[in-house]
Amino acid sequence: MSPSLEFYEDVARSLPVKPIATEINGVTGILNLQLEEADKHDLVLRYFRAFIADLCEQFKGGHPGSAMGMAAIGIALYKYVMKFSPRNCDYFNRDRFVLSNGHTCLWQYLFMHLVGVKSMTVEQLKSYHSTRYDSICPGHPEIENEGIEVTTGPLGQGVGNAVGLAMATKHLAATYNKPGIEVVNNMTWCMIGDACLQEGVGLEAVSLAGHWKLNNLCIIYDNNSITCDGTADVANTEDINEKMKATGWNVIDVFDGHSNIGAIVQALITARSSDKPTFINIRTVIGFGSLMAGNAKTHGAALGAEDVANIKKAFGLNPEEHFVIPPEVYDFFREVADRGEQLEADWNSTIKTYTEIYPELAAEFKLRVEGKMLDEWTKYIPKKEDFPTGPTASRKSAGLVGNPLCENVKNFLIGTADLTPSCNVAYNKKVDFQSPELRTACNLNGDYTGRYIHYGIREHAMGAISNGLAAFNKGTFLPITSSFFMFYIYAAPAVRMGALQGLQQIHIATHDSIGTGEDGPTHQPIALPALYRAMPNLLYIRPCDSEEVAGAFITAINAKETPTIISLSRQNLTQYPQYSSRDGVARGAYVFIEEPEFDVTLIGVGSEMGFTIQTKELLEKEHGLKARVVSFPCQRLFEQQSKEYKQSVLKPKSGKPIVAIEAYAANGWERYTDASISMRRFGKSLPSATTYEYFGFQPKIMAPKISALVEEVKREGIESLRGDFRDLNGYLGIGFEH
Amino acid sequence: MSPSLEFYEDVARSLPVKPIATEINGVTGILNLQLEEADKHDLVLRYFRAFIADLCEQFKGGHPGSAMGMAAIGIALYKYVMKFSPRNCDYFNRDRFVLSNGHTCLWQYLFMHLVGVKSMTVEQLKSYHSTRYDSICPGHPEIENEGIEVTTGPLGQGVGNAVGLAMATKHLAATYNKPGIEVVNNMTWCMIGDACLQEGVGLEAVSLAGHWKLNNLCIIYDNNSITCDGTADVANTEDINEKMKATGWNVIDVFDGHSNIGAIVQALITARSSDKPTFINIRTVIGFGSLMAGNAKTHGAALGAEDVANIKKAFGLNPEEHFVIPPEVYDFFREVADRGEQLEADWNSTIKTYTEIYPELAAEFKLRVEGKMLDEWTKYIPKKEDFPTGPTASRKSAGLVGNPLCENVKNFLIGTADLTPSCNVAYNKKVDFQSPELRTACNLNGDYTGRYIHYGIREHAMGAISNGLAAFNKGTFLPITSSFFMFYIYAAPAVRMGALQGLQQIHIATHDSIGTGEDGPTHQPIALPALYRAMPNLLYIRPCDSEEVAGAFITAINAKETPTIISLSRQNLTQYPQYSSRDGVARGAYVFIEEPEFDVTLIGVGSEMGFTIQTKELLEKEHGLKARVVSFPCQRLFEQQSKEYKQSVLKPKSGKPIVAIEAYAANGWERYTDASISMRRFGKSLPSATTYEYFGFQPKIMAPKISALVEEVKREGIESLRGDFRDLNGYLGIGFEH
Repeated sequence: MSPSLEFYEDVARSLPVKPIATEINGVTGILNLQLEEADKHDLVLRYFRAFIADLCEQFKGGHPGSAMGMAAIGIALYKYVMKFSPRNCDYFNRDRFVLSNGHTCLWQYLFMHLVGVKSMTVEQLKSYHSTRYDSICPGHPEIENEGIEVTTGPLGQGVGNAVGLAMATKHLAATYNKPGIEVVNNMTWCMIGDACLQEGVGLEAVSLAGHWKLNNLCIIYDNNSITCDGTADVANTEDINEKMKATGWNVIDVFDGHSNIGAIVQALITARSSDKPTFINIRTVIGFGSLMAGNAKTHGAALGAEDVANIKKAFGLNPEEHFVIPPEVYDFFREVADRGEQLEADWNSTIKTYTEIYPELAAEFKLRVEGKMLDEWTKYIPKKEDFPTGPTASRKSAGLVGNPLCENVKNFLIGTADLTPSCNVAYNKKVDFQSPELRTACNLNGDYTGRYIHYGIREHAMGAISNGLAAFNKGTFLPITSSFFMFYIYAAPAVRMGALQGLQQIHIATHDSIGTGEDGPTHQPIALPALYRAMPNLLYIRPCDSEEVAGAFITAINAKETPTIISLSRQNLTQYPQYSSRDGVARGAYVFIEEPEFDVTLIGVGSEMGFTIQTKELLEKEHGLKARVVSFPCQRLFEQQSKEYKQSVLKPKSGKPIVAIEAYAANGWERYTDASISMRRFGKSLPSATTYEYFGFQPKIMAPKISALVEEVKREGIESLRGDFRDLNGYLGIGFEH
Repeated sequence: MSPSLEFYEDVARSLPVKPIATEINGVTGILNLQLEEADKHDLVLRYFRAFIADLCEQFKGGHPGSAMGMAAIGIALYKYVMKFSPRNCDYFNRDRFVLSNGHTCLWQYLFMHLVGVKSMTVEQLKSYHSTRYDSICPGHPEIENEGIEVTTGPLGQGVGNAVGLAMATKHLAATYNKPGIEVVNNMTWCMIGDACLQEGVGLEAVSLAGHWKLNNLCIIYDNNSITCDGTADVANTEDINEKMKATGWNVIDVFDGHSNIGAIVQALITARSSDKPTFINIRTVIGFGSLMAGNAKTHGAALGAEDVANIKKAFGLNPEEHFVIPPEVYDFFREVADRGEQLEADWNSTIKTYTEIYPELAAEFKLRVEGKMLDEWTKYIPKKEDFPTGPTASRKSAGLVGNPLCENVKNFLIGTADLTPSCNVAYNKKVDFQSPELRTACNLNGDYTGRYIHYGIREHAMGAISNGLAAFNKGTFLPITSSFFMFYIYAAPAVRMGALQGLQQIHIATHDSIGTGEDGPTHQPIALPALYRAMPNLLYIRPCDSEEVAGAFITAINAKETPTIISLSRQNLTQYPQYSSRDGVARGAYVFIEEPEFDVTLIGVGSEMGFTIQTKELLEKEHGLKARVVSFPCQRLFEQQSKEYKQSVLKPKSGKPIVAIEAYAANGWERYTDASISMRRFGKSLPSATTYEYFGFQPKIMAPKISALVEEVKREGIESLRGDFRDLNGYLGIGFEH
């Protein structure tokens, strides 16, 4: 005999967070929404949970527990509260929904099916964990699929994304809404589990949301108190409600979230009218219905055929039947799609009125909806002759290129992880994105129309929020982030998610290479470029001077489906207007200085180009050798070129050696070169120029090594270098003359 | 005329956090320590601040502001509260001090000088920001230098390190202390600025410290309310005290921290007797004494000669004199070194008594102090014949090797980021590291003798804490962390700091490659190995079967100054006891299957070895080609081998092509190969085997491509491949037969 439903209710009651009563703390009922009767809710809950269990059982895998536990939350959201249009998931003013606990995706997929998202058929639902290449039900939600706002899975990222989505709304609303006419007023809902606010990125993001008073953001916490290792208190005993309050959030408790749809609806509606972001702490039961309800075993594995049968029996369903959704369940959700169409119609009507009253603003807003640039951006890019010819730090060049762009083209949202004085991204007449209520001690305030974002010292959240800004609606914004390049290692999980999702944005990464100097090895990236050069769909561009910086910006802005890191120097760099080319940057690498008769090809990159040129000169002067020079700002762009172009740049068939000079780990240069002068150890705290000296990036040290290599090749043939890549590095006295 | 000292006090009073009164909230005076008179404190404060200003002025750079602001905190710590021995900075039971806001290092350097740390001479102090290669005063503190516990700089890391250091003490104390005889009872002090608790890693770490009730840990918050972008409220307006309380910390306020040494001392002493970790929120004035006091401009740049002169005038010092430390200042600190020697003497006497009463424990404790293994670890490593010969996931193999080791050798501290069921690091009879007061809902409890650490879903803090555990005393602990390999991208900043500091530890990274399957592209690492292979002083080892897993552990345990990532499969792998070799792993790569006459060399790695062997067989059967196979678990280890060995493994001079087969980005393999079958795009959510199929890792797809390459080389010579590295990848129908 299978356990009764009361058994599961008992399990629920015995859990660490006891569902003692239906109560929404301190919030009086504001609900004027007519809920369906309790037995209808119960029916939907039972079939929903059984269907989830069936889906995981089918291929003996997946994440059933939370999806079952969150069933009542889904009904509250999808049936009653969330404003969206199932027949047009891209409806511009839709509420955004982020499933930060992405492993519970079956929950979202099944609700999408029930409310009538066309592509989400039962057949598709059943493709979860199947071998079907065309499944739109992957193990975590993916942005490519209809109705999915962002790809989630790596925990905590979704919280940052949701903050970005809410900011996007705030900014558009402040910029375009007029009294009585709101063209944008959507909410952002973010579902999380026990992990998302253990992860630092989530904590950084909620701190910012509280600071910015993003009252259009609501986190819905599926508090089932279970993580993989057991109950969550094995690793977490903090008072999350107090913590969220201290971080500037309103907090609402719901204690019997496995069933009390009314309480959840009321909490969600309360969130819509909050003065702060809202955190709804909903106690649920993981795997509700299963014999293992409330146990971590229901988290990441199928429940087993026997348990699935028991669940159905306990729910009064037929254990012999699988994947059952009776007509009553479809009927229950039937109004949602129609309501969504009405929302769209109302919005279209609002836009029509708006267009009549504010034709200019409306025209601009139309461009935002279409994801188009608001101004002809190319005219703001300086010409080569506009740049200073004296030594210039490329971070300064980036300001020369980026600041006018950002000032004039309002699609840009420019942020910094507390490095305004260093990263040169602050443009003329900038307005900060801030709550208009904020009054800082230094009188640096702003409002929601602001496009300059102070992220604080939170690189990881900056990256995740930037993804959210970019994901709001393709092309509506082009987010820029900025920090020292080294600290894009903090942001790496978010930068990767941006690349995975094809979210265009620009990361201004200053203080690259060992040239950053005195701050020492902790601040000098060595291995990080290897990550970003290997990362699919990401452009890591290291320009060598202002002209190449212009090329980097142009390339980044044209890369509509790809994020770009522009990697810049702290220190002054010699300018090479006679050689450098913005068009060359777009091809990844190009001939910087050609020599008809040559002995060696030198590859110069970014801030090491100066040493490369000096070494070329010394090779000629003291060794009688001719070196041609290739500038190589971006490997991924170069890989996209034709074989003919590539060979014309590198001339590998010439029988002459190719040497890369870059103060990073050599990894990856071996594809193009026979040798490199690079870094196989961490850096050192010294003034910039001395750091380079210390590690042997001196023409007088490099030239003899290259000369010896050239002589060896002349003597033994280029074939002798095969399988014998040379690290011509020298440091700490090796080869030093002083 | 220069401003009076009152001017600066006024500046202090006008700052956002007003120093309204000397008050330690709710804490009654427990101070029975006789403080020096106020005028002596004032004298030291004045000379200290002027000296800092001089140091930054010397080379026109550095971080003067916070170092000057924190002067009174330093006197409280170094003169009165911290238990350490300046003449023997390695004294085992010393209080550990972490400067998490590492840019303020001059503050630490100067106090180290004043208390008599021998190597820290005035000449050395003056080498800060100089071109001297032998400076022990780098721009951020570095572990190599006397008296520095951990290298800091990347913000927030130090908080994690401090949590690890405090855990180390707790664990040793619980294991070895006896009633009335405490062989370990040191405090850990962690200095932070405004950034360290904005960073997620800091927030993760404090959450754990609160959970573990680490009452031997104290964070001292230099709350000057200034960050680079302005006052801190530009990006942060949360109530940090309430947040820390909600996280399980005691909180003490000090309001006039720029001068009130008594209040700071009292707070620090209170922290020593707390039942929880303590957070001391000390309001200070950045750049105290400067005309720009309280302004971000004093943070990261020299103050200018005029301001430095004004500071001295305001302080009643001679503006013409530089680097002045009068005898009274040295006198003030003179007792500290003697007191430190007495501490050591007392501890030695304690150890003597302990040794008499508990000779066996004392012998073991002596090994801990000497940083030696407590047991002959090699005997716990299974022999090749002990392993199962059927298909075995390498994460399971890692359990077979690691679990007996961890069970028996008590130096190991084993942790997981909430993946106990997945990572197989939980050993027999494990005891969890927990507060003995904890009572979890799932009855999974522990105490401080425990060596199994539930980090929760906090990979970044796990890495930073692990660094702290390893840094406590070299060799006392060998920390192990575990998570999915993909989520070592969250931990990357901390893993890097471990490599930079030479802190031995083992990271068990399961679910590597696209073989992790259904969880999809968010969980499938593609670029991450490129980061870890390029990272100096880090071993990234991908074993292909159980025997190689044994080799990976042996190598990792022998690497006393180097952290190791052991990269493991989720899915079952064919075992190759006839070919695989633990000794081969130690050399990075080795011949797996030799063929006297061969057409091609195939490189197999980790979980892709099976496909490599199958491809070899298919090449022979269907293409009549002989392939030799090299197993290549670790590039960095291979690089350390002789040229002769390397060429004997790869045979680059044979004129035969070399092809690597690995489901990661190819970056770096170009050093060793002519072609690779790899990944240039993100993964896909499919069952493990299907994922490999989808991306063309099928022998029937790979063999023809390799065969074509061999034919081309036969036809055109190996030289034809020069500068033309081949990506022989195939996916999404390209080359598919079904």
